Order: sequence, then C-alpha cells, then structure tokens
Amino acid sequence: MRVRHKPWADEYLQENAHIALENSYSYRGKWKEVYSNQHPIHVEIGSGKGQFIAGMSTQHPSVNFIGIEREKSIIVDAVKKVKEAEVPNARLLLVDAKDLRDLFADNEVEQIYLNFSDPWPKNRHEKRRLTYPAMLEQYKAVLKPNGRLVMKTDNRGLFEYSLVSFSQFGCTLEDVSVHLHNDDDPLNVMTEYEEKFSSRGYPIYRCVVQFPF
Amino acid sequence: MRVRHKPWADEYLQENAHIALENSYSYRGKWKEVYSNQHPIHVEIGSGKGQFIAGMSTQHPSVNFIGIEREKSIIVDAVKKVKEAEVPNARLLLVDAKDLRDLFADNEVEQIYLNFSDPWPKNRHEKRRLTYPAMLEQYKAVLKPNGRLVMKTDNRGLFEYSLVSFSQFGCTLEDVSVHLHNDDDPLNVMTEYEEKFSSRGYPIYRCVVQFPF
Ligand SMILES: C[S@@+](CC[C@H](N)C(=O)[O-])C[C@H]1O[C@@H](n2cnc3c(N)ncnc32)[C@H](O)[C@@H]1O
Ligand SMILES: C[S@@+](CC[C@H](N)C(=O)[O-])C[C@H]1O[C@@H](n2cnc3c(N)ncnc32)[C@H](O)[C@@H]1O
Repeated sequence: MRVRHKPWADEYLQENAHIALENSYSYRGKWKEVYSNQHPIHVEIGSGKGQFIAGMSTQHPSVNFIGIEREKSIIVDAVKKVKEAEVPNARLLLVDAKDLRDLFADNEVEQIYLNFSDPWPKNRHEKRRLTYPAMLEQYKAVLKPNGRLVMKTDNRGLFEYSLVSFSQFGCTLEDVSVHLHNDDDPLNVMTEYEEKFSSRGYPIYRCVVQFPF
Repeated sequence: MRVRHKPWADEYLQENAHIALENSYSYRGKWKEVYSNQHPIHVEIGSGKGQFIAGMSTQHPSVNFIGIEREKSIIVDAVKKVKEAEVPNARLLLVDAKDLRDLFADNEVEQIYLNFSDPWPKNRHEKRRLTYPAMLEQYKAVLKPNGRLVMKTDNRGLFEYSLVSFSQFGCTLEDVSVHLHNDDDPLNVMTEYEEKFSSRGYPIYRCVVQFPF
C-alpha cells in the first residue's frame, strides 16, 4: 500500500482518540472495560483503510472489533470510515502486530482476521509474514481455546505458505475456499484490496483455522 | 469418464495378466514378492487410461507402482500404456478401491495418489468421495507410519472438501498448490485429465498430506 505523508494525521488521530485509542498497551487484559460489555473480541491485523472493520462492526453489533494498523497515514482513513459508520463497537490501534501479546492477555481474543497481508514473497523475508510460526505462537497465546483465525488473500504464494504453516503448527482447517467470489456469500464483507482484485477477476483465497489448545 | 463396452477387453486382460494381475486380493501382505525386490510401494487410485502410472514408473525405477481402476473398458487402455512403456515396476488391478484393506496389509504402502477423482458434488453422495473419512481410515491403515497421500484435481469443490477432511482427520499438510502449472515443475507427470484441463487454462490443485500414526 502506498504510504503518503499526511501532516494533519497526528491532529486528526488526537481528535478521534475515542476510535484511534492512545496508549494501546494499557488495555491489556481489560478490553471488555473499553466497550463496557461482555461481547467477544475480534482483532483484525493490518486493517488498511478500514472498509472491513467498518462493515463488520456494522454487521455484527454484538462483537467488539479492534483493528491494528501500523501506518499512520493509512489508519487515518480507517478512522474516518469507522466514524462514518457510527458504530460503538470498533476501535483502531496504531501499532505493530508483532507485539500482540503486549496488547492482549492470554485467552482475551475470540477471533483474528488477516486480510490481504503483505506477502513477503522472498524466502529471506519469511519471518515477516504474518503466518510465520512465531506469529502463530502469539495468536495461540491471545486466542481463547479453540479460537479461530480467518484469512483472506489474493496472493497465491502467501496462501499456500500459510495453509502449510497453520497445519504444521497444529491448527485444524475448518473451511477453505480457493475462489471466494464464486461462492456468492451475501455476508462476506469486502476489504479494499478484495474489491480491487476480485473485480479484475482474480481468485480470492480464504481459510478458517482453529488453533490447538 | 465415458465408459464404452469393449468386447475384446476380457481376452486382452488375460493375455496381459503379467500387468493386469488376476486374483488381486491374493497378494495382500506379499506385494514385495510380486516385484522380487524391497522397493517402496506406491498406489494410484482411479488410474484411468494410465498415463500417470506409465510416466511415473518410467521416471522412478526404484518404486513399485500399483494402479487401481474399477472400469474394465478403461483399464485396458492403462494396460496398453504400461506395456508400451516397457517398465518392470507397474501393475494394474481391476478392482474397486473401497476394499483397499483387502488388497494391502497394514503399513504395506508408502504413498497413495488420487488423480482427478470423481468429484461427487452432491452432499448426499459425500460418502462416495475418495477423501471421505471412511476412505481416509483405509489409507491410514495400509500406509506406513507417516506415509503420504498426493492428490491432484481440477475440481474446486472436491479440493476444498478434501483439505478440510484431511485436516479434521489429523493429517498434516506438507505442500499445497492452487495453480500447479504456474509452478513449472519439470518432474510433474501429467494425467489425461490434467492435460485436458490445464491446456484449457483451468487451475490444477495439488496437495501432499502426511497421515498421523
Ligand atoms: C496489503 S495491505 C491490505 C489492507 C487491507 N487489509 C485490505 O485488505 O484492503 C496490508 C496492510 O497491513 C499493514 N501491516 C502490515 N504489517 C503489519 C504489522 N506487522 N502490524 C500492523 N499492520 C501491518 C500495512 O501497513 C497495510 O496497511
Ligand atoms: C475422472 S477419472 C480420472 C482418470 C485419471 N486419474 C486422470 O486423471 O486422467 C476417475 C477414474 O477413477 C475411477 N474410479 C472412480 N472411483 C473408483 C474406485 N472406487 N475404485 C477404482 N477406480 C475408481 C473411474 O473409473 C475413472 O477411471
């Protein structure tokens, strides 16, 4: 995703600190207090411009969504989308997902979404992929027993790598699609990347895995 | 596959009983004797017209191949291909794979191939799919500990179903491709169906799974 410098971003994020939370790490273990309810917590990693989290939080009012995005100039667009959606159940964090265990206590998260994550195709960059075993360790820690991860991507290499990585880690595959938009699922919420690539006719890949205890 | 009646088939199979073995079930537990060597045994289920087993047995002289095909009018073509290949390490069995445990003793097989298996897309026919759990039980029994199954198909639904079925059964995914012919693997031996569908530009799906002990 192209990152443009946006000088007004800091101010915009401060003004909308009820959505783009500050001091992200201070909520660890206390996320239910943020939303003042007991609803399950779903985390999206790499939210980009926020179309998915805005759509999902509208569609699922009894789920609390947290979007993680490390680029300031991108997260501002996500904040805008969540604001326009006027939903009480979505928050955004300007942080790097590599520190997930500092953001969430063990078993605090019910579901994780990876949407069109950066593919890092070169072998020497394998460790940067969000489905590298060290990341799966983090997901396992913060997810409840039998928690789920849902991944969508247009990238063949990342998808194939991730299926193998999940399996070797001990995850169980619950569902898989190698051409999501031929399934015609009316409840599927599209991301920006998904809209772009599926409109060009590229297959979109999706899998749902359950983590081991 | 279209099945034509071939009145000369019985005679042809008898003449070539060194390839199309008679009394298939009598070799259970004694397959190494058939080949008079200790090479590993690989089994293809649904060999069709035999292009794969003929090609593989040529490419891998230190593997013993056994092809299973239940249609007489189709297996004759496979016998012809194996004969033309002039290989000592391929046999064909005119039987139904549903009785696999009667053909092989426990741990007798090292690898199983499923190539373009009939997809049986209707839910009520799920039990006929060659990756239905009851079939996986048979594969597990005849395969050595950590034995592998390699599956190729053009059929999206069957592939997606099979990946989930393998995973829920406890298999580990070793390798997966959602567009095999973009991988450009010079060692890949194509089946008849594979040649037809890939030449039309359809994606070919492939996975390699390891069975649990
Ligand atoms: C290719 S974009 C996809 C955006 C969006 N999910 C979509 O599908 O349209 C990947 C996004 O993930 C963000 N990202 C990548 N690695 C990250 C990490 N470790 N932590 C947080 N965000 C990350 C990038 O900044 C980028 O916005
Ligand atoms: C769609 S064709 C594919 C043939 C070949 N593998 C290829 O890829 O070109 C499936 C073949 O499997 C055979 N077959 C299906 N179920 C079988 C079973 N239970 N036992 C033995 N053969 C079977 C069919 O008769 C048919 O020849």
